[in-house]
Amino acid sequence: MSKGLRARQDMEKERETLQAWKERVGQELDRVVAFWMEHSHDQEHGGFFTCLGREGRVYDDLKYVWLQGRQVWMYCRLYRTFQRFHHSQLLNAAKGEFLLRYARLAPPGKKCAFVLTRDGRPVKVQRTIFSECFYTMAMNELWRATGEVRYQTEAVEMMDQIVHWVREDASGLGRPQLQGAPTAEPMAVPMMLLNLVEQLGEADEELAGKYTELGDWCAQRILQHVQRDGQAVLENVSEDGKELSGCLGRQQNPGHALEAGWFLLRHCIRKGDPELRAHVIDKFLLLPFRSGWDPDHGGLFYFQDADDFCPTQLEWAMKLWWPHSEAMIAFLMGYSESGDPVLLRLFYQVAEYTFRQFRDPEYGEWFGYLSREGKVALSIKGGPFKGCFHVPRCLAMCEEMLGALLSRPAPTPTPVPTPARRGAE
Amino acid sequence: MSKGLRARQDMEKERETLQAWKERVGQELDRVVAFWMEHSHDQEHGGFFTCLGREGRVYDDLKYVWLQGRQVWMYCRLYRTFQRFHHSQLLNAAKGEFLLRYARLAPPGKKCAFVLTRDGRPVKVQRTIFSECFYTMAMNELWRATGEVRYQTEAVEMMDQIVHWVREDASGLGRPQLQGAPTAEPMAVPMMLLNLVEQLGEADEELAGKYTELGDWCAQRILQHVQRDGQAVLENVSEDGKELSGCLGRQQNPGHALEAGWFLLRHCIRKGDPELRAHVIDKFLLLPFRSGWDPDHGGLFYFQDADDFCPTQLEWAMKLWWPHSEAMIAFLMGYSESGDPVLLRLFYQVAEYTFRQFRDPEYGEWFGYLSREGKVALSIKGGPFKGCFHVPRCLAMCEEMLGALLSRPAPTPTPVPTPARRGAE
Repeated sequence: MSKGLRARQDMEKERETLQAWKERVGQELDRVVAFWMEHSHDQEHGGFFTCLGREGRVYDDLKYVWLQGRQVWMYCRLYRTFQRFHHSQLLNAAKGEFLLRYARLAPPGKKCAFVLTRDGRPVKVQRTIFSECFYTMAMNELWRATGEVRYQTEAVEMMDQIVHWVREDASGLGRPQLQGAPTAEPMAVPMMLLNLVEQLGEADEELAGKYTELGDWCAQRILQHVQRDGQAVLENVSEDGKELSGCLGRQQNPGHALEAGWFLLRHCIRKGDPELRAHVIDKFLLLPFRSGWDPDHGGLFYFQDADDFCPTQLEWAMKLWWPHSEAMIAFLMGYSESGDPVLLRLFYQVAEYTFRQFRDPEYGEWFGYLSREGKVALSIKGGPFKGCFHVPRCLAMCEEMLGALLSRPAPTPTPVPTPARRGAE
Repeated sequence: MSKGLRARQDMEKERETLQAWKERVGQELDRVVAFWMEHSHDQEHGGFFTCLGREGRVYDDLKYVWLQGRQVWMYCRLYRTFQRFHHSQLLNAAKGEFLLRYARLAPPGKKCAFVLTRDGRPVKVQRTIFSECFYTMAMNELWRATGEVRYQTEAVEMMDQIVHWVREDASGLGRPQLQGAPTAEPMAVPMMLLNLVEQLGEADEELAGKYTELGDWCAQRILQHVQRDGQAVLENVSEDGKELSGCLGRQQNPGHALEAGWFLLRHCIRKGDPELRAHVIDKFLLLPFRSGWDPDHGGLFYFQDADDFCPTQLEWAMKLWWPHSEAMIAFLMGYSESGDPVLLRLFYQVAEYTFRQFRDPEYGEWFGYLSREGKVALSIKGGPFKGCFHVPRCLAMCEEMLGALLSRPAPTPTPVPTPARRGAE
């Protein structure tokens, strides 16, 4: 068989695998969206139930603001970008005014609650920016999906407030100033902001321009989390980019680093910066996978210690759904951008594990929490931190990326004649 | 063999088992205390390191105020009540002024930090009473061990402040008032207070008198956590003793109920109330054990849901050291007070599991965190919540109780002639 023929056959086989995954991922997306459509809508008070048992039964009616914002965002995004989800049922569920009406503690003040009662009264507040970030994402997508300007006004005003808290004055968040508290930067903060820069700037030249400097600042701050001569991504560093002492300083979260990886890859695409792209693939994709993948049972550890001490988080060795969703996006995006087949193989490896271990073929959606060995540890489909977000976002993005890869014109392989084997056919 | 002889032989065998456990427990106490003496003392800044790896190596130098107070308490108590621990090394380590000097955020204000830097600067504050409770326990024991009145002044003043926060005005704790937040009472609050009543009132008629009403109030509040017609102990109830909705309301923690059980048993001893004692044994010892003991792998689950939903705590099915230490104390105390052999058998069952699964014969002290199946999940010996407290407290109390049981005069068994079998020997 000629080298040319073999190469064509390999390429054909590769396309078949990509096609099979595109179908698998697309079907799974349909099942997952159907699960949330069927079980999570609160017809009486609006908003979404997210505390759902294995079969979808509501086991608590609290409404977590992160998850309310994320589900609105997800529904609008699916409605807006997928032909088959462009139906009013999805948009109407997203448009419910629950979030707009109840998320903020004392409007016009911008601080949002962390969790609300079923009818929207605040139960808990976090002294962080994350409820507000998911509120912003939701409002921006609502504007894109409906064209109603009041949503965009909410999004932009909230964004300004978040940027003020992060870059100018955090006192509005209500955290006490303590003499011994290190000025630590959790990587989540510049990550969330970079994600918002991407969200608000999408096909919007004016806002993209407004946030250019902010996006660069976020990327630079995330890159500061690569420490120890490029050998570790640390979750918390000092504001001037130094390693912090103790467990806090040594904490690693491989799934979170991989998520930061694809946020940065999108930044590189926007910037047209292949050198930075190579650095990001090396440090935020390959490095966390190498250190974070469990060689015995497969799957990504949840927490690790950069000096290999035992982490103090009780769940450190558990396998959670979201690091695996993020890893799937990161490796497929890395492959789409670089063409490096190593990244495609890693996508397959993570996707195979993820579909095998987390999917629930019986009742739909994914389990969220497995033991180290891969046994289902919590049978819930949703809870205080798991809602309609990581799984459908992963599936939707992977379906789009696989579609884009398959629609690229197949390059004609050039047969390379090998003298020694010439005439061997 | 006569019934009388058989009964005498049974009793002899029982005494041998008790004696063997007394020795086992006593030797283990020596090893555990030696571990903390060797690895936890900060010679430079005072106070104790508690973040200790398997071999005792310090992996973080943060100082958690709960654990600082508990270790001072433990050292003083051992010094004061055990001949073999009555040595100056233990007392001097306890007497270090670290806690007195650094625990409070802004003396003379009473609010304490949750965690301090190695040199005593505050890192985090909790908006609860627990740092302050362990501070009070430590100061009271320091006074008892040294006779220095300044410690007792600290203890009594802090106690007054805690009682004020709990029963009159919690605003000093800094918790925000939120419209949707239920007025939930965690069982830990009246438990800790009842424990302090016992601590401060021990052999102190004046303080015992001062706190009599408070002790009754605490006991009544703990008893309110028995819900559902006596079929469940719930961790959180409303202030007027009603079940709360959702996961918060259904949350159970069998080890915590067992700990409340022995706090209440001591209250019954003080009160001379055998009727209440029977109720406590039924509801806080037997009931949590029946529902909380893992029939497949042994050990007590950490969290459960009263309606058998899957708990949302990731660690719900893990086996932690402290529920097992508390269960050992509870069952042995229950047996000592009631003489019910069922409780002695449960003590043996829990103690066998605990010694087999948690002890580390190689490096000393106990592992703290096992998987559901009983595998060591975290190899640390100390951390943010595990210090020199539950294990030595359990061992010391069990050694004392076993000693007391063994020193009781053996009752002469009365041979009960059974007509049908008379003359059968």
